Amino acid sequence: MPVGAVIVREGAIVASAGNRTLRDRDPTAHAELLAIRAACRTLDTERLTGCDLYVTLEPCAMCAAAISFARLRRLYWAAGDPKGGAVEHGPRFFAQPTCHHRPELYGGIRESEAAEMLRAFFATRR
Amino acid sequence: MPVGAVIVREGAIVASAGNRTLRDRDPTAHAELLAIRAACRTLDTERLTGCDLYVTLEPCAMCAAAISFARLRRLYWAAGDPKGGAVEHGPRFFAQPTCHHRPELYGGIRESEAAEMLRAFFATRR
Repeated sequence: MPVGAVIVREGAIVASAGNRTLRDRDPTAHAELLAIRAACRTLDTERLTGCDLYVTLEPCAMCAAAISFARLRRLYWAAGDPKGGAVEHGPRFFAQPTCHHRPELYGGIRESEAAEMLRAFFATRR
Repeated sequence: MPVGAVIVREGAIVASAGNRTLRDRDPTAHAELLAIRAACRTLDTERLTGCDLYVTLEPCAMCAAAISFARLRRLYWAAGDPKGGAVEHGPRFFAQPTCHHRPELYGGIRESEAAEMLRAFFATRR
C-alpha cells in the first residue's frame, strides 16, 4: 500500500516515511506511525507539539490515535479511505469522548492526485 | 502507565512487553504495540495467526487496530478503560465496518486484580 507521511515544524521537514508493513514484516509500520516515531527520536520528545503531519491517505484508527497521543497540531490528508479510514469513516476517532487531543483537521488536500496514484498502483497489481 | 501485554502461541510465550512511552519517548510504545512488533520479529511474519494477546488494560484505538492488522486470534484484557479504551468504549473499534479482522474478545479477566494494581500505582504518584 503506497502511502507517504511527512511531519513538518516551522516550515522544515522533521521526519518522513512510507508504509513498510510488508518490507519490515511489521503490521504497525504504517507511514504515519513510522514518521511519528522518527520525529520523536529526532526531537528527543514524546510530544510533537507545534508539528503538523501530512499524509496521502486518511489515517486508520491506529494512526489517528497515535497522532492524538503525539499531540500533533494539524493533520492534513489527501484521499479519503472509506474502507479503513478512522477520521471521517468508521470509528471517527477524533470525534470520540475517549480522544483527549484533537489536531486541526484538513482533509481532501490534493485528493484527486493522491487517489489517482493509489488507483495506478492497484491497477499494476491486478 | 503500568500496563503489560503478553502474546502466546500454543501455550508458549512469544513476546511480552510493558508500556514504555515515557522511557522511550515514543507515544506509540504501548505494551500491546511493542509485544506485537516483538512477536512479528520473533516469528518473522506480519501475521500473528494462531496467536493470542493478553493485556492488563482494555486496549486503546491504536492498539485495537494493531491487534486487528496483526490478525491475532484472541484478545483477553483485564480492567476496562472508560477514559481511553476502544473495545467496549469510545470508538468500539472491532464493531466498526472498517474493522476487517475481529479477534475473539474476552474482557474482565482478573479485572479487580488489575484495577487494584493501577489504583495503587496512581496512588503513589499523587
